[in-house]
Amino acid sequence: MVNDQSLASGQRSLGDPDLRYPLWPPLTSGCPATSTDTTAYPVEVDYDYDRVPAELFQQPPGPGLQRWAPLLPPLHAPGLGEGGTPLIELPEHGVFVKDESRNPTWSHKDRLNRVAVSAAAGVGAPGVVVASSGNHGASTAAYAARAGLRCIVLASAGMPPAVGSFLQSYGAVVLAVPSDARWPLLRRITAETGFHPVSNVTTTHTGHAFGPEGYKTIAYEIFAELGVPAALFVPTGYGELLFGVWKGFAELVRLGLARKVPRVFACEPAAGGPLARAVAEGLPATSVDVGPTDAYAINSAVSGYRATVAVQESAGRALLVDDAEMALAQRDLARSGLWYELSSAAGLAGFRQLREEFDGPVVCVATSSGFKDIGVGDHRPEVIGPDWAVVRHRLLEADIRC
Amino acid sequence: MVNDQSLASGQRSLGDPDLRYPLWPPLTSGCPATSTDTTAYPVEVDYDYDRVPAELFQQPPGPGLQRWAPLLPPLHAPGLGEGGTPLIELPEHGVFVKDESRNPTWSHKDRLNRVAVSAAAGVGAPGVVVASSGNHGASTAAYAARAGLRCIVLASAGMPPAVGSFLQSYGAVVLAVPSDARWPLLRRITAETGFHPVSNVTTTHTGHAFGPEGYKTIAYEIFAELGVPAALFVPTGYGELLFGVWKGFAELVRLGLARKVPRVFACEPAAGGPLARAVAEGLPATSVDVGPTDAYAINSAVSGYRATVAVQESAGRALLVDDAEMALAQRDLARSGLWYELSSAAGLAGFRQLREEFDGPVVCVATSSGFKDIGVGDHRPEVIGPDWAVVRHRLLEADIRC
Repeated sequence: MVNDQSLASGQRSLGDPDLRYPLWPPLTSGCPATSTDTTAYPVEVDYDYDRVPAELFQQPPGPGLQRWAPLLPPLHAPGLGEGGTPLIELPEHGVFVKDESRNPTWSHKDRLNRVAVSAAAGVGAPGVVVASSGNHGASTAAYAARAGLRCIVLASAGMPPAVGSFLQSYGAVVLAVPSDARWPLLRRITAETGFHPVSNVTTTHTGHAFGPEGYKTIAYEIFAELGVPAALFVPTGYGELLFGVWKGFAELVRLGLARKVPRVFACEPAAGGPLARAVAEGLPATSVDVGPTDAYAINSAVSGYRATVAVQESAGRALLVDDAEMALAQRDLARSGLWYELSSAAGLAGFRQLREEFDGPVVCVATSSGFKDIGVGDHRPEVIGPDWAVVRHRLLEADIRC
Repeated sequence: MVNDQSLASGQRSLGDPDLRYPLWPPLTSGCPATSTDTTAYPVEVDYDYDRVPAELFQQPPGPGLQRWAPLLPPLHAPGLGEGGTPLIELPEHGVFVKDESRNPTWSHKDRLNRVAVSAAAGVGAPGVVVASSGNHGASTAAYAARAGLRCIVLASAGMPPAVGSFLQSYGAVVLAVPSDARWPLLRRITAETGFHPVSNVTTTHTGHAFGPEGYKTIAYEIFAELGVPAALFVPTGYGELLFGVWKGFAELVRLGLARKVPRVFACEPAAGGPLARAVAEGLPATSVDVGPTDAYAINSAVSGYRATVAVQESAGRALLVDDAEMALAQRDLARSGLWYELSSAAGLAGFRQLREEFDGPVVCVATSSGFKDIGVGDHRPEVIGPDWAVVRHRLLEADIRC
């Protein structure tokens, strides 16, 4: 039984690592002891690392997070073949791309939701509730459907049209509400229905207690192919992905399999950038006003302490990339055959901005497919007649000899 | 070098298997000797099977068609980590789903295009041209971009909006032309530009000479996980996928690794169904009038002899599924966590229609993600106020207690 393989031993406060809590229930509001009115501290999951089987990191590759069951919380919810995504070398850009668009709902969020929906099943909740207008909501809905749990998605009115269909498809109850009402409603729904929250309910971001553990598997997979890269560039909203990937490498060091962690670089939209501000000001987490950006998937007003830990412990940095830098990186990735949503290109945009030489491979995590973008569906090519002269003119305009 | 590993020895006519041609150039108009004014016969690629290394089928799983290089034409074009897709067991539906939405452009077409664009690179063509309003066109554009080749996509005006953005993203020249002008224009462009055609140019379908070889890898992957299934249900337009998967199993038999091939069931939209007609009437290939259907990805007026071979040689059948059957299968797959486009659900719809017990596993090939459907983007949930009474009413309507 997969569930019996977990070596998870409890929850540990990131606010004070000496503070430990039992594994159940997941502390969905973060660490109760260290959190204050202005800063919420998350918890992470601790494991009985001494008992990790030696063969865990000698497995053949493939999908399915259950292959990493010893280093994950118990997987009570069934999987959809998440993870096991390709690492694609793009020599023309000097990077490897970890292609997370190759997950069951075509984003990295499936790794988190396999774990977070498992937590909901583990506590016997009748359903899950999530505030999201994109990848996270759809992924939660898919894993809830697979597990036979109900799902409520609190979306915002401004979501891209294709994402509306995406959220609906899995049978979730999708409610579009004003953006600033989403978190209060999430708390209310949790209280009134007993549904398990799989997105954040706290002042600064703590998110789900178990969810980021799923992202560790990205590190395990990269390590199996490349060893420890020199640097990782990660599109960053609340920083759960950033933390998870860093933690995976930190565990490999702890287990004696790796000698160091890669430097992790958070890549936030310049329109906001709460993590960059927190790091610059020496704060655990903070909030900022957010200006306009099309990188809606990582457009966050608040940061979380997890991301601060990952940047500081890895000697990384918090970078700000603007929409033009992301759009250029997005275009260049597509011209190499990989079409991602704008937010997903933040990693390559950050790497380019840094203009730093690294002594080893550089990995950019690309989080999600191009179908999720704002503006998808607006490119309707004009219909032209079948006349050869017209077609030929268009080809000549495009520098194609005919 | 990957290119040196290919054991491809020539092209063989499907019209008369004793007729062999050199491997180069790819016969993009099918077999010149056996084709007639009414029926075009495709060619396939032959290999030096005696030299297939024993360890080929003992590799660990993973993406990248180059792992199967001995049994593919030379791979001159670089890859994008295509293939290595998960096989997901859905006990509630009694099937395994081969999830081809997990490819680089989120459809099975990437396996074909790695091979077909390699053929274009192999003949030194300056570019590729394809007639497609969906998955095939986008996939061709992606592989052409990766290989540094130009790409022309002849799309039709009625393509779904999201697909318009998809086709544009990879930098191809996208020309929307009247549907019945696409094949004549494809031939003209091929003649005038020297671009290599990666879609069909013949009366009945022959398609690309090398392309379907890429689909064989689906059989190799299924075999590694399950052995030989009892039955395969395959969404069918021109039948290249059907043929490729069947041929992969036929090769496993030839190599002494498997004892039999699975029965392969073609699942065509009932609105057309040229293969079903060809099989019923004992014809190699035929054409029909096509009525309205939303399954645009497999909505074909002509069939190809490849599909006829696969159905007959495997004791399979050509099934017709209507839009309502596909829509129900699509909904049920999404309620199990897997959102596919309507055409992709034809496999499960066909399995259900057959109501047959099989003595072994049943595999449905799901070809592509739900983002490609007509109607995606039309589901915009109504925005409701943040008032708890309103939200509570909506939850109660959805049978959620609160």
